[in-house]
Amino acid sequence: MAFALPAYHPPDFAKPPLNDAPVVSFAPVLEKGIAPENYHATTIFPEYYQLSKATWVLLKDSRMDCVVVLSPDGSLKAKEFHHLEKGEQVALGRGENGEDGIYVHPEAFAQPPPAHEKFAFRTLPTRETSFSIDYDELYELMAYERENGFILWVMGPAAVFDRDSRNALVELIRQGYVHGLIAGNALAVHDLEAALFQTALGQEIYGKRLAPRGHYHHLDAINLVRRAGSMARAMEDGLVHDGVMHALWQKQIPLVLAGSIRDDGPLPEVVKDAMQAKDAMRALTARATTVIAVATQLHSIAVGNLTPGYRVLPDGQIRPVYFYVVDMSEFAAEKLTNRGSLAARGILTNVQDFLVILQRGLNSRHTMQE
Amino acid sequence: MAFALPAYHPPDFAKPPLNDAPVVSFAPVLEKGIAPENYHATTIFPEYYQLSKATWVLLKDSRMDCVVVLSPDGSLKAKEFHHLEKGEQVALGRGENGEDGIYVHPEAFAQPPPAHEKFAFRTLPTRETSFSIDYDELYELMAYERENGFILWVMGPAAVFDRDSRNALVELIRQGYVHGLIAGNALAVHDLEAALFQTALGQEIYGKRLAPRGHYHHLDAINLVRRAGSMARAMEDGLVHDGVMHALWQKQIPLVLAGSIRDDGPLPEVVKDAMQAKDAMRALTARATTVIAVATQLHSIAVGNLTPGYRVLPDGQIRPVYFYVVDMSEFAAEKLTNRGSLAARGILTNVQDFLVILQRGLNSRHTMQE
Amino acid sequence: MAFALPAYHPPDFAKPPLNDAPVVSFAPVLEKGIAPENYHATTIFPEYYQLSKATWVLLKDSRMDCVVVLSPDGSLKAKEFHHLEKGEQVALGRGENGEDGIYVHPEAFAQPPPAHEKFAFRTLPTRETSFSIDYDELYELMAYERENGFILWVMGPAAVFDRDSRNALVELIRQGYVHGLIAGNALAVHDLEAALFQTALGQEIYGKRLAPRGHYHHLDAINLVRRAGSMARAMEDGLVHDGVMHALWQKQIPLVLAGSIRDDGPLPEVVKDAMQAKDAMRALTARATTVIAVATQLHSIAVGNLTPGYRVLPDGQIRPVYFYVVDMSEFAAEKLTNRGSLAARGILTNVQDFLVILQRGLNSRHTMQE
Amino acid sequence: MAFALPAYHPPDFAKPPLNDAPVVSFAPVLEKGIAPENYHATTIFPEYYQLSKATWVLLKDSRMDCVVVLSPDGSLKAKEFHHLEKGEQVALGRGENGEDGIYVHPEAFAQPPPAHEKFAFRTLPTRETSFSIDYDELYELMAYERENGFILWVMGPAAVFDRDSRNALVELIRQGYVHGLIAGNALAVHDLEAALFQTALGQEIYGKRLAPRGHYHHLDAINLVRRAGSMARAMEDGLVHDGVMHALWQKQIPLVLAGSIRDDGPLPEVVKDAMQAKDAMRALTARATTVIAVATQLHSIAVGNLTPGYRVLPDGQIRPVYFYVVDMSEFAAEKLTNRGSLAARGILTNVQDFLVILQRGLNSRHTMQE
Repeated sequence: MAFALPAYHPPDFAKPPLNDAPVVSFAPVLEKGIAPENYHATTIFPEYYQLSKATWVLLKDSRMDCVVVLSPDGSLKAKEFHHLEKGEQVALGRGENGEDGIYVHPEAFAQPPPAHEKFAFRTLPTRETSFSIDYDELYELMAYERENGFILWVMGPAAVFDRDSRNALVELIRQGYVHGLIAGNALAVHDLEAALFQTALGQEIYGKRLAPRGHYHHLDAINLVRRAGSMARAMEDGLVHDGVMHALWQKQIPLVLAGSIRDDGPLPEVVKDAMQAKDAMRALTARATTVIAVATQLHSIAVGNLTPGYRVLPDGQIRPVYFYVVDMSEFAAEKLTNRGSLAARGILTNVQDFLVILQRGLNSRHTMQE
Repeated sequence: MAFALPAYHPPDFAKPPLNDAPVVSFAPVLEKGIAPENYHATTIFPEYYQLSKATWVLLKDSRMDCVVVLSPDGSLKAKEFHHLEKGEQVALGRGENGEDGIYVHPEAFAQPPPAHEKFAFRTLPTRETSFSIDYDELYELMAYERENGFILWVMGPAAVFDRDSRNALVELIRQGYVHGLIAGNALAVHDLEAALFQTALGQEIYGKRLAPRGHYHHLDAINLVRRAGSMARAMEDGLVHDGVMHALWQKQIPLVLAGSIRDDGPLPEVVKDAMQAKDAMRALTARATTVIAVATQLHSIAVGNLTPGYRVLPDGQIRPVYFYVVDMSEFAAEKLTNRGSLAARGILTNVQDFLVILQRGLNSRHTMQE
Repeated sequence: MAFALPAYHPPDFAKPPLNDAPVVSFAPVLEKGIAPENYHATTIFPEYYQLSKATWVLLKDSRMDCVVVLSPDGSLKAKEFHHLEKGEQVALGRGENGEDGIYVHPEAFAQPPPAHEKFAFRTLPTRETSFSIDYDELYELMAYERENGFILWVMGPAAVFDRDSRNALVELIRQGYVHGLIAGNALAVHDLEAALFQTALGQEIYGKRLAPRGHYHHLDAINLVRRAGSMARAMEDGLVHDGVMHALWQKQIPLVLAGSIRDDGPLPEVVKDAMQAKDAMRALTARATTVIAVATQLHSIAVGNLTPGYRVLPDGQIRPVYFYVVDMSEFAAEKLTNRGSLAARGILTNVQDFLVILQRGLNSRHTMQE
Repeated sequence: MAFALPAYHPPDFAKPPLNDAPVVSFAPVLEKGIAPENYHATTIFPEYYQLSKATWVLLKDSRMDCVVVLSPDGSLKAKEFHHLEKGEQVALGRGENGEDGIYVHPEAFAQPPPAHEKFAFRTLPTRETSFSIDYDELYELMAYERENGFILWVMGPAAVFDRDSRNALVELIRQGYVHGLIAGNALAVHDLEAALFQTALGQEIYGKRLAPRGHYHHLDAINLVRRAGSMARAMEDGLVHDGVMHALWQKQIPLVLAGSIRDDGPLPEVVKDAMQAKDAMRALTARATTVIAVATQLHSIAVGNLTPGYRVLPDGQIRPVYFYVVDMSEFAAEKLTNRGSLAARGILTNVQDFLVILQRGLNSRHTMQE
């Protein structure tokens, strides 16, 4: 069954309590990077602001834990606190139901919930939850998004520690299922190490043998690329000719490598400043319509913070943003939920198998339809 | 590359310390089920007993933590302590290197170890270890074992909680890759529940909806089968016509359902007495040449206890017994290692994905070879 | 603040829908161990049965997934399916709100829930949840239960793998905080091994050294106790003079060791038949007012099945039964919740530290009050 | 038993292969931040460099994956690749046994290993390993280090999510057991949130209630501190008067908060550039004699990279650096081992309980000795 976007249900502003709600108020930023008291902080949900009586404006470009600034042209903009400039007007009020002129709308795309029973098993998702339907839905969703959306991947290094999953990811890139990638230095380093030495952290990505002096491999890979000047330059020079970084470079897919204190090197493309990295990541999450975060707690949570649950398309249509978290541990999947990224759907498995099944499934779906 | 059995390297009995070793001594069982002091306990490795000078006899049918009894006909037999009968002669001595006339031989099939370095990464297997080669080796191994060996599966219930993995397991059975199955009541119950209601513990195995009154489903399944008299009878009566139990029944594959204190029902086929269940399991592990234990700590450890690392074939050839443990947690995989089942190879992933990849991989290998 | 039992809030039978509810109907058992169609299955909650118009009878001795039998004397009794005798009258109907004459009452002790917000962090309990208050509540609860209740412990073997936690458990027994214990063969075996050899599975429980030939220790412990005839006899003979089994024996605390297919030996006290073991466990859970299940998934789930969420005291008072699950993994804690033991409270930590903190905390509370 | 430093065993340079080893060679850096080919990369172990015949010089200030630079004054210095300056002389050669004039010395402090057996249980540390002795050793070690060493803590935020563990950490700081702390923005933010609102991420750190509008608490805490200008200023202004940050400030303990892409705010003290943060962390790890890393995978691995296994004291004495990793998952503990921080000792438990037991244990040890 082909994927179709769910309908968006706007709030009814003509009914109580919204018909009686006040207009939202604003206060100026007195000091750069500091919000005024009683600022409103955003959620991942659509939020409406009553700018003048009966004029409710949807915040278009939201994400978690931002403040909302009224531009001189009358438009609203979500901003991180540290980006606040002196004099900017910040929306005030913490009510969610219109009492401060702000309405938070979590049920915009929701299906009616199932009838409640007093007693039921299996109310929490775990590794024993069935995931067949998630794969099937992903095939349909990704086929749709390949043509109509923006699929953003967020990746821990484990994806390139294994030959088959690294190849699967390369195929997904080649076939158009990757529109952007956010990762850390390590994913790129070990992908390059695999291209140059067929190892990851010194262990063969297929045969598993620990290579002699293998603990030099990732350092050599970094040093070679740093000498070339950049990964892009290393590709042009023919130093590297396979793998994830190479496939992204060939298709000119946008990539953000966010620096961290764990990094060896780092590679030239790594954004070492955390706030600059967040801004670069935000440029991708602002375009994302589906996010697939695999095997990385740090980056998943960071991207979860930067990704709203909806997106307003150029034609004004409002659609959901889908967010998948693939991890081995319930704790990691729940962590995202517990930080407010409530719409994230967890798939509990090894990233290696996830990528292999997904790529083969997309492939055979494609083949069947020809 | 087709699978070939590794060569067996017997010890050199002509060299020290074995050429000078004493003959093994025995002492009688004085009381049923009690071993004499200084009894020898078996390991999973091949063990040789010097019955008379220069006559070293290999224990043929070993497993962990048994005692060794000398039969009147001069043959050796491993027995659980609780099976010891009064008057039986039990081998004595705890030396492993011949000092008591017993030689434990862990390196019988071993490859030469890699050269040692002072410093290396990734010496422990974890979820980030590459598993591509394990799948490829499994395809070859299972193709070989389907014709020449005995593939014993050990299963937790999660395998039937998901539609695709349940179907994959059914296909593996149909295609001849399952020669025996050891599980608990729950695997059978939820497989029957899936056949009758398309749910597991009340949740749809594909759509994930919690069915209304779904917590009755497994109880209804049990009650219906108990009324029929047995699972086999329920199959004959046409009550159940798909799933794992049905496929095993159709192909007459031996099945042991070991009872536990968690069991609802239980189903008529369940062996409620733990020692009787162990004996029934042992009848299967004695035939096994490959064991695949998925998503069950209880049964994996139990079967690990009952499975030696080698088997003597009818023609006298000595071959390894392969033991795979598939689990989501390093702890579960290591637990087997930490209990002495040292040869067990861990694959860290969700059983659902493991079964799907394995079955599809075997299938496409088969298709390619036609 | 001293612990006080929460009030019980009975349903209002004079109001709709209960005032109009029919009388519950019954059907006879036609075959031993088989329930009639449309049987009602119990939950862990209080359940009321309208036996005649306006006479609602509370089921006193419930637990999960049983059927309800009307005794000739007019009383109701929960029974496992396999205990059903031919001719017994079984309650029918699956409605929970009186529509079949049965009312399930999950909110009997509930506090009013907190006001709902559209957006909140940390709605799921994980390892990062605060547990200070759980310890403090446990101190108060256990002080109360020591005098007024029945504290049932359910234990995996890890509790005796460590010197300090083993000692803490011994102290808890001596001080009266353990009224019953359910475990498997392994807990007893390794506790005896520790008493005899200061090791668990061959590793010192304090110094961690692997003892020479240490893999014989648990086998020797079992063989010695089997020779003595029983653990009790081994204690009387002076073979064992410290540890958990010894402390239980000294204070004559009821103990159930449920057999499993993993068991070496087993020890003479082990109940090898799973259904007999369940009955023996049920005899303890029927008396329990607080259950503390630590580091065992198998036994926790089994006891969860056997333990209702309430108990009717001899004087007719209805009180909650408290159920704690202490485990390292969210999955284990959630598994209990996902099987319907909804009232179980999870504490995510290592059993070693849990026992040490609990015992020391109870001790210093006691000291302070003197 | 009081703690005593283990003896250091230097290599015997007069014996083969070292007596015949060549002098180490160097090559210049041709481009800033790029190492010459065949550079030598450091390990966590003591390493000796033969600068002229029979003059072996110990690298004093090492850590993992650095290059070694010969200063004009003839001393050796470990440097990260990105700190290499043009013209610097970098040691060459990848042999570990003198073949390139470099000797890696992993066994410097080692005890003789236990006698090998062919068969043993429990060779891997897991959650079921005994940890009593680790606590006891930590009490002795920390008492020694408080007077003679430098105890560096590395912390995830979970430590302040619970009242008792937060208090325990504050006490450890006050009592002199914390000489430096490395953490992320989140630890500080939620500690300040706890000081101001008694919550962490909106949940009470004792009562566990989700506070109304609690998802504003951490944002308000950050905004208030940013308005004050710094945490230090907020303390001086009396805004915050309890907790971990306050105790560190009172005792003027060095603190590094390393920025990450997950950070809200961040707090003014956070070092946002990853390489600058590493340098600041390195300033602390260079002084550390004991590292205790709790409940943080990111920071643990980063600090593991920056911490050698030994330290040369001002008087020339060479001593080990102790490294503890406290985590709930075997995977996290093994990850450090698998990245070469081989000396790290894992304690598998919840950080809350770890801190509480450690602080109480140190306290009662102190009390007993008075």
